[in-house]
Amino acid sequence: MTTKPEEANGARKERKPRPQGLEDWRQWPNYEAATLGLRNYWYPTVWARDLGDKPQGVKLLGENIMLIREGSKVYALHDRCPHRGVKLSEGKKVFPGTVSCPYHGWTFDVTDGRLCAALPDGPDSPIVGNVSVRSYPTEEALGLVWVFVGDQEPTPLRDQLPEELFTHDFVAAGRITPGRYGNWRFAVENGFDEGHARYLHRDQAFMMFRQMPGWARTKIVASEDGDWLFRVQESVEYESDFPGLGKWPRRKITQVAQRKMTPGEVGKRLDPTIKSLNLPGHISVRLPGLLRVAWTTYLHFEWYVPEDENHHRYVQYAVRFKTGLGDVAFRLRYWTYIRWLFHGKFTGRDAWMVEEMDAPPERLFRPDVSITRWRRLVESAFEPKREQKKPSAAKKP
Amino acid sequence: MTTKPEEANGARKERKPRPQGLEDWRQWPNYEAATLGLRNYWYPTVWARDLGDKPQGVKLLGENIMLIREGSKVYALHDRCPHRGVKLSEGKKVFPGTVSCPYHGWTFDVTDGRLCAALPDGPDSPIVGNVSVRSYPTEEALGLVWVFVGDQEPTPLRDQLPEELFTHDFVAAGRITPGRYGNWRFAVENGFDEGHARYLHRDQAFMMFRQMPGWARTKIVASEDGDWLFRVQESVEYESDFPGLGKWPRRKITQVAQRKMTPGEVGKRLDPTIKSLNLPGHISVRLPGLLRVAWTTYLHFEWYVPEDENHHRYVQYAVRFKTGLGDVAFRLRYWTYIRWLFHGKFTGRDAWMVEEMDAPPERLFRPDVSITRWRRLVESAFEPKREQKKPSAAKKP
Amino acid sequence: MTTKPEEANGARKERKPRPQGLEDWRQWPNYEAATLGLRNYWYPTVWARDLGDKPQGVKLLGENIMLIREGSKVYALHDRCPHRGVKLSEGKKVFPGTVSCPYHGWTFDVTDGRLCAALPDGPDSPIVGNVSVRSYPTEEALGLVWVFVGDQEPTPLRDQLPEELFTHDFVAAGRITPGRYGNWRFAVENGFDEGHARYLHRDQAFMMFRQMPGWARTKIVASEDGDWLFRVQESVEYESDFPGLGKWPRRKITQVAQRKMTPGEVGKRLDPTIKSLNLPGHISVRLPGLLRVAWTTYLHFEWYVPEDENHHRYVQYAVRFKTGLGDVAFRLRYWTYIRWLFHGKFTGRDAWMVEEMDAPPERLFRPDVSITRWRRLVESAFEPKREQKKPSAAKKP
Repeated sequence: MTTKPEEANGARKERKPRPQGLEDWRQWPNYEAATLGLRNYWYPTVWARDLGDKPQGVKLLGENIMLIREGSKVYALHDRCPHRGVKLSEGKKVFPGTVSCPYHGWTFDVTDGRLCAALPDGPDSPIVGNVSVRSYPTEEALGLVWVFVGDQEPTPLRDQLPEELFTHDFVAAGRITPGRYGNWRFAVENGFDEGHARYLHRDQAFMMFRQMPGWARTKIVASEDGDWLFRVQESVEYESDFPGLGKWPRRKITQVAQRKMTPGEVGKRLDPTIKSLNLPGHISVRLPGLLRVAWTTYLHFEWYVPEDENHHRYVQYAVRFKTGLGDVAFRLRYWTYIRWLFHGKFTGRDAWMVEEMDAPPERLFRPDVSITRWRRLVESAFEPKREQKKPSAAKKP
Repeated sequence: MTTKPEEANGARKERKPRPQGLEDWRQWPNYEAATLGLRNYWYPTVWARDLGDKPQGVKLLGENIMLIREGSKVYALHDRCPHRGVKLSEGKKVFPGTVSCPYHGWTFDVTDGRLCAALPDGPDSPIVGNVSVRSYPTEEALGLVWVFVGDQEPTPLRDQLPEELFTHDFVAAGRITPGRYGNWRFAVENGFDEGHARYLHRDQAFMMFRQMPGWARTKIVASEDGDWLFRVQESVEYESDFPGLGKWPRRKITQVAQRKMTPGEVGKRLDPTIKSLNLPGHISVRLPGLLRVAWTTYLHFEWYVPEDENHHRYVQYAVRFKTGLGDVAFRLRYWTYIRWLFHGKFTGRDAWMVEEMDAPPERLFRPDVSITRWRRLVESAFEPKREQKKPSAAKKP
Repeated sequence: MTTKPEEANGARKERKPRPQGLEDWRQWPNYEAATLGLRNYWYPTVWARDLGDKPQGVKLLGENIMLIREGSKVYALHDRCPHRGVKLSEGKKVFPGTVSCPYHGWTFDVTDGRLCAALPDGPDSPIVGNVSVRSYPTEEALGLVWVFVGDQEPTPLRDQLPEELFTHDFVAAGRITPGRYGNWRFAVENGFDEGHARYLHRDQAFMMFRQMPGWARTKIVASEDGDWLFRVQESVEYESDFPGLGKWPRRKITQVAQRKMTPGEVGKRLDPTIKSLNLPGHISVRLPGLLRVAWTTYLHFEWYVPEDENHHRYVQYAVRFKTGLGDVAFRLRYWTYIRWLFHGKFTGRDAWMVEEMDAPPERLFRPDVSITRWRRLVESAFEPKREQKKPSAAKKP
């Protein structure tokens, strides 16, 4: 994968000079307006294996959506019976290919949302055919159920997902947390944030065998297709002298067994498939809110799926490019260790910070270039003039 | 009891043509405005046997009201000491015929709400006689404490209650649930709603020995005095073929032991007193929010007493026209079976729907004539021009 | 201590005639506006012994404040990292004399709030020295940590506290309750309120050995320096005949062992130091919200520290002017009896009333002169024309 440095990104030059001292979301009006998320994207919802013909309700971008499986396909309808406003996800499947509202048995075709019976009004009910609920495009992929929320024709799902997940075999395991507190933007910003990991996560058990730098010179680079932003560390420091204060971070006894985390996490133990991706940085982010972390032997993804103003669905997804025995070994590693220490404790501390954050106003510092660059990506993707040139949809044939 | 069909109801002809496509409460502005309930009615509150000289607080139509018994009579005062706003229902009876605020011992005559002592200011307190709290008309009847909430002279209680409760001996048992979630209007609409019973309640244990129709041709008729609206089933269907879907409701193995529910629930096992009432329909409703269900051997009433915008007091009341041994038998039946399966489980499912309802907007269907006819009853009872012609007050001498 | 009666208080004559019938806070606009408390005062927060170098968060007058001890001194900073709005009180001390935000390790000098390191940006971080958080004046005194909240130069702490606490040796014990429900003004008013004690607290266990008057003729007098208001009982009544109702309070069997509470609580068993204070009344109050109760052998203070609109920090503080063995005896008495029955049960009933109060509107009665006089004290202390003549600051050299 080739990349172009931030400096060469034309979009930057076009930007108006930013008002001095203004350090909050008002600099990015499209971003500020995206409280409920970015429309016209595919979002992951539930594990495909957990969805049967008992409907499930989820909230996406402020919309209540009912999911159901019919045969080998999954379907999504607006989760509100138009009769009296009861949730269809509280109902059940009475006839094949339909879902019935629990209140009066209004029965909707799951494929298109059309009302096909209003049971207590008999077979000749005049309302049949005259009412329908909105249906949403769905896909089943990567073990997840995906829903497209937007007003445009859906882009092919694959175009909005990391390419490597379609070009290599792998085993995946993960954790889905609905109703995680905090606006989705705080969650993305926290995920891609350069600075916090060095401090917030430093002493966590998951870092026991890694010697984390204290700080780094970092630049943000975009992938050539514009889909991803990478944090690229040009240099890292492991212990520094802070004038008047002392040394930080201080070396600990446990560090004798630690392996230094080098820029880009490149080392001889690097997984060959991950190596072949040629990622310029350890951490990357893309629209509509997907973080990728390249560990030495596996990739970790996390989606921050907007639910409402103050909550998001948090989808953690770990990928090991192995099959057969390697598959079994990774599953064992995931369920004994990664799920607990990384998908639980480690990212739990991020959840704590997202809950605590009380911004704007904010006062950014040098490492926050990761945050502002991400904001700018969202901002320009949704500028009116670029409407016809959606990054991922347009570039992949 | 004679009835006049809906078609002959003059009120209907007077109505302005309703705006096409408008399907919500805005069609009935008086009804829409009645968020906190209908004033100038008697409402049931607590069991008479549970009220002693320890004051109790209830909320009716948005007003906090204190109830207390003094000797053989019950009294109701506005439940707020005018001094500093503390609830009188938190206080106690210090002197006969009074209630004292817990904070400073302001002591009110329960009969008229007049301040008759401000204890810590001594017997010569100049405020005595210059302050009073509102008192509410009360009655004790049918084992319940009734309060009249309104600004007019109270109608005799009997005029606002079902006649049969004053003309026959009976045994009653029931259940009072304060703070049930949902605006009172949703609760009445659900109770009188033709369609939901066929679907929502079909598979409940209380229906085990009844074969419920799948659907019915129903018309709404008013009683001659205009007090009641009845759902009258002109025909019922027990199993129908829904094109493209299949048969519904499907016959179940348990139905061999079921008795068909016929229109009007008329049968040879019908209780003679209930039969003598000559009710044109199984279910009826009246102002200010009382539902009557005629089962074969007993009547069930439920009052939806407005508390605040989102809560009502739910009074369930089962009546068997028997005394002596029949009385004992019914009490046994009530406490072993009816209370649990009907007043608990069955109507609990209604509570669930009232919680789930998220309307307006709404999209009504044919069986909802029961709902719209009820709305129209409320609407016309409170139209300015009919102010002087209140249905129940005016018609009974 | 000499006092001047209320009648001689010049401030009264200046007052405009009050609108007839208007009986609520609108009479005292400054008071009404003081929802979040009175600024430019010292407030007690936590026990000094409980504050170490682990930061603690408190809320004062609507402001989040972090407290920390560094060596022998305590410091207070605005409890919000300006970077992303996380609370510094969730962080920790990494270097001596500093506190670091948990999120990115922004490190602030506790003495002045200056940012002295932004750890993950390295020692050369350009933001260092360009950001700071507000710091608050603090003092450690009487075993408590005090914070000055305001915009003016802080008055010496001693000038805002009861003089006797600096001129005599004593032993103190108490109880701090953060987050007590109710606006601070309701709590002060309840504390100084003449009338409620006679009724609300009459039958409490703490009153077992005291015969409380039923009512009293009371006037409010100010101390000569204007700092304190006293309730002075000119006469008390122990049992009265309320016409048409009966005698109240009624003598109880337990009262044979009770000692009458006389005006000013003066008796031969009175503690000599308390006697020497020459207090004209049992109960007194001062700005910004401190109540003093003179029991026979000890003083009780309570501070109502504003937190937000609906909560205050409640600081109860009992003072016995003894040392040595008397010290031990009082501690024993406090922990076996006073803490439980007075600082727990007795004032717990006040908390109940403060929760119940639903005012304005209100309708005051004669004993409420204590409340209105207190309101007037607040009102005049904060009148624009008196801004330069702050009562306590100006009068003590």
